[in-house]
Formats: sequence, C-alpha cells, structure tokens
Amino acid sequence: MRILITGAAGFLGSHLCERFIDEGHYVIGMDNFVTGNIDNLTCLAGNPKFLFIRHDVANFIFVPGEIDAVLHFASPASPNPASPYGYTNLPIQTMKAGALGTHNTLGVARSHNARYLLASTSEIYGDPLEHPQTESYWGHVDPIGVRSVYDEAKRFAEALTMAYHRYHGINTRIARIFNTFGPRMHLDDGRVVPNFIQQALRSEALTIYGDGSQTRSFCYVSDLVEGIYRLLLSEEHNPVNIGNPNEIAILELAETINKMIGNQAEVILKPASRLGDDPQRRRPDITRAKEILGWEPTIPLEEGLKRTIPYFQQKLGLV
Amino acid sequence: MRILITGAAGFLGSHLCERFIDEGHYVIGMDNFVTGNIDNLTCLAGNPKFLFIRHDVANFIFVPGEIDAVLHFASPASPNPASPYGYTNLPIQTMKAGALGTHNTLGVARSHNARYLLASTSEIYGDPLEHPQTESYWGHVDPIGVRSVYDEAKRFAEALTMAYHRYHGINTRIARIFNTFGPRMHLDDGRVVPNFIQQALRSEALTIYGDGSQTRSFCYVSDLVEGIYRLLLSEEHNPVNIGNPNEIAILELAETINKMIGNQAEVILKPASRLGDDPQRRRPDITRAKEILGWEPTIPLEEGLKRTIPYFQQKLGLV
Repeated sequence: MRILITGAAGFLGSHLCERFIDEGHYVIGMDNFVTGNIDNLTCLAGNPKFLFIRHDVANFIFVPGEIDAVLHFASPASPNPASPYGYTNLPIQTMKAGALGTHNTLGVARSHNARYLLASTSEIYGDPLEHPQTESYWGHVDPIGVRSVYDEAKRFAEALTMAYHRYHGINTRIARIFNTFGPRMHLDDGRVVPNFIQQALRSEALTIYGDGSQTRSFCYVSDLVEGIYRLLLSEEHNPVNIGNPNEIAILELAETINKMIGNQAEVILKPASRLGDDPQRRRPDITRAKEILGWEPTIPLEEGLKRTIPYFQQKLGLV
Repeated sequence: MRILITGAAGFLGSHLCERFIDEGHYVIGMDNFVTGNIDNLTCLAGNPKFLFIRHDVANFIFVPGEIDAVLHFASPASPNPASPYGYTNLPIQTMKAGALGTHNTLGVARSHNARYLLASTSEIYGDPLEHPQTESYWGHVDPIGVRSVYDEAKRFAEALTMAYHRYHGINTRIARIFNTFGPRMHLDDGRVVPNFIQQALRSEALTIYGDGSQTRSFCYVSDLVEGIYRLLLSEEHNPVNIGNPNEIAILELAETINKMIGNQAEVILKPASRLGDDPQRRRPDITRAKEILGWEPTIPLEEGLKRTIPYFQQKLGLV
C-alpha cells in the first residue's frame, strides 16, 4: 500500500511510519513541525520507501500518486500547560488540526478511494463518570473548558469521520488512543512518564500534582502501533479503544520509576489539577479491540519503562 | 454599526437583519441558500441599509468596508430527517458551517476588530441528564450518533469561539438558543410547531412521535431576537441560554393548536424517536440571561401561535 501518515514526525506518527515501512509498504509522511521533531525520522532518512512532505494539514492537501490509506495523527497532544507542546498553548493550531485537518485528510481519502484511520483519543471521554470507559460511553466534556480545544476538536473529528463514512461511503476507522509512552516523546512533553523519568535520571524529587491517588493506564508504544496496524487492516468503522487497561496510581508509578532508576530523592506532592478539568481516572475497556482485532497489550509497564529510560538518558547526555 | 449576519436568509437570521436595520444599523447579510430562503428577505429588498452577499461561510470570507459586529447564524438547524432541511440530510454542510464557518467568521471579527456572536444551541446539551439546563451543564452528546453532525459542530464552534476570545482577545459572545418558532419557518422545516400548524390548517390529524409526554419549551421569535440583541450589546463572554423556560408536553401543544385553529381531527401517536438520541426533555434555566441582560420572554405561547398561524395560512394559500 501507499500510505499517507500525518503527524509523521510526532511520537506516534514516527513509530507508525517505521512499522508500515517494515511491513513493506510505501509511506508518505506529513508534518508541519509545530510539535513534531525531525529527529524522530532520522532512521528513515534516505529510505526509498519513504517520502516526507512538510505541510500543515489545516491547508488543502495534495499528494502525488495513488494513496491506499490515510492515517490522520497530526495534532498537539500533551495536556500540560507548562509544556511548550501543550495543546492549551497551541489552542488554534490544535482545533485546526482536529477540524480542518480531519476535513482535508478525509478529502484525500475520498478522492483516492482510500481507507482512513482517525487518531482519536480517550480525551473525548473527558472527566469520565463511568469506569472503565467503553466505546458506548458518551463522555463528560466541558465544551468551553480550557481543555476543550483538544477534546472538542477530537469529538468533532470523530463526528466528521462518521459523517464521511455514512454519507460519502468512505472506508473509515476511529482509534480512541489512551495514554501511551515510549522513546521519542519530547523531553518537555509535560506528560507524567517523561517528567518522572527525567526527574529520576537527574536525581531530583518526582513532582505529583494531587495526592497521587489519581490513576492512569499506560500503554507501551509498540503495543499501540500493533493495535493501530490491526485496526487499519480490519473493516471496523465504529470507534475502538486502544490502550492498556492496567490501571496504576500516579504515586505507584513514581515509586516504580524511582526504584528502576535508583533515585533516592523523594516524591513531592503539589496542589492538584493544573487544569480545571483534569480527569481523576481513565482506563480503557478493550473488550472490542480483543474481539474485533484479537489485540491486547503484551508489554508490561516495567518492561516498557526499561525500553524507554535509555532514550531519555541519551537525550539528556547521560550515556 | 456595520454588522455581518450569516444565515441572513434563514428563519432567525432574517428577523435579526430586520431588527438591526430597525435600530439604525447597516447590515450585510450572507447566505448560500442551502436552507435559507430569499423570500425571507423580501421586506429588505432595496433597503439602503442592507447589502446581501451570496456566499458559503465554509469558504474564505471577504466583506467590503468596516465591520463592527459579526453574528454567525449560518447552519441547517432542523433535526427532522423527514425534512429536506434536516441537518441529518445535510451532514457535511452542517459540520462545515459549524467548524469552517465559525473559523472564517471569527477570522472576519479578528481582522476587523469586531465583536462576535455565535449562534449556539440547546443541542450542545444533547439528551440532558439535568433539568432545567444551566450553562454550567456539560451536556450528554453521543459523538458518533446521527445527530452529532449538528451537536458536535456547535460544541466545536463554542470551543473555537472561546479559544479566539482567550488567546486572540476577540470580543465574543455565545448564545445557546432553545426551540424558537414564528413566521418564516420552512413549511417543511419538520419541527413540531410548523408541522402541527399545517396539519391543523389542513384539518388533518396531528402526528406525535411517542406518547406525547415528552416536553419542549418554545420561544417566540421576537423574544429570541430581543435576547440576541441585548447579548450582542453586553460584554458577556460566557455562554448564555436564550429560550423560554415555559415547558409544555407535546400532547398539550397539539391540543392547544387544534383548539386555536378549530381542527376536529384527532391526534395520532406514532412510535417514539425518529432518531436514536432524540431528547425527552429540554428546558432552559435563564437565570443568567435575566441577571446579565435583564431579559426574559414576554410573549406567551398562545400569543406567539396567534402571530404565527397567519403566516402558514398565507403560505398554504388559505387566505
């Protein structure tokens, strides 16, 4: 297949480019570098199966030649306002990537009669009132909250994708991606795993916002990529949760990382919720992914951390 | 003021054009006639205070001269799939008006340093789990349901409007408009008031979907226009419900209309919910509109119906 992947220089996008090329496909990667990093594509430089186009998906997209599949992964994705890559610091870009970008990439899929996969997110569930979250849960999102620039853009993107499927007959898929971690996350991504790893590597105290009882479920990136790969090859048009249902309290995560890295510094608790609607819990119900895709995560948290820590060691110049 | 009103040939848009011209303002009306009707603007033909531009707001908007205010009212708005104007029959146009249209009209407001008013909707509350709905309620919307083409487009439009306010400093307002009725609704709009009036005028039985116990709150159009007018002149940036809190069961509405018109035919109950997520109840809490705008509806339902029925009589050729 010839596959267009937007957000190709991002954390997930770059891993997807590699995976599809490894499977023998030809990949056209697209990114505008608002949050993407060209370093993430170094391993593909000069690869005859890879073409890179620098372009903002909010503008009309032209790609040369046939396209068999479109994966729309372009968007800021970090909720942390302290990060320069946080979507609350890139509100208009985030909404344009989610709305105009989805409209334009669906247009590519339509004109090429290509299959389409939207990278949606667990954030469409907002601050959920049901646990774990199944795909039938409608979510709990404040439409005018500070996080709505991401949440509502992705909800709109899902609605538009289903509209193109229902009314234009486009062969679409929607992946609701839960917390994922691994090499190639920005040093200052601002999410908890890279934050903790770097603090531990620097022998600093790990900072927790809240009492540490809030939970998250972390999926290692290779598991996520496998789920996306299977979903693209499936014929499932309704949303599918892709994430790791193994829930862990943030305090336990901090202690695990400190132990693995051998960091003696303490954990510091700071006042909760840097953002008004920071969710307390989020955990995917992956029954549908298991049944439809035969997929479930295989990499335990500690194994994923073991594969991730060296990346940050290298980026910090510690090896 | 020089005011741009999109959706100017629509039910609400045309009444707004008239009102602002009556107040001495200059109005530029814009419509692409997907659901608008040029007949609604007949009374303004040749008026030196009115300029009409035929244009689709999903495309870049250029307007000549200065603009002091933008009111974005362009969108299909009927939920009825049996109506050619129903948004489920115009899914892509509806999503483009809500996302691209809001983006483009906010761009006009930004480039002209104009105040901006978004026509949002009670549908952002979806099938609400709280009654009555206050502006702080986050809503209950299925992001991939058939109605999501409207609901999610408007939620996105609100989020984008707040983002332009917060990050570009645009002087924005958001009106959450509840059920409104009056002259200039399409004969085949598909919503319950025009349906019932026409059935009664034709001496046909009035059709109710469900047992008739589902409630709605109906605001007469002149009250709505007054609320929008005051909101535009206010400095309130958070959403404000504009609607009539007077809740009425659909069965009672049918009987009221039959009585007023003198229709002897019966009421027919048909299976409930033509759409999976048709809300059972919706009623605005207008505390904020009262406090901030000093506004509340003044036209009782029967008085509004008395003013509306002659319009449909004329359209049906019965007078």
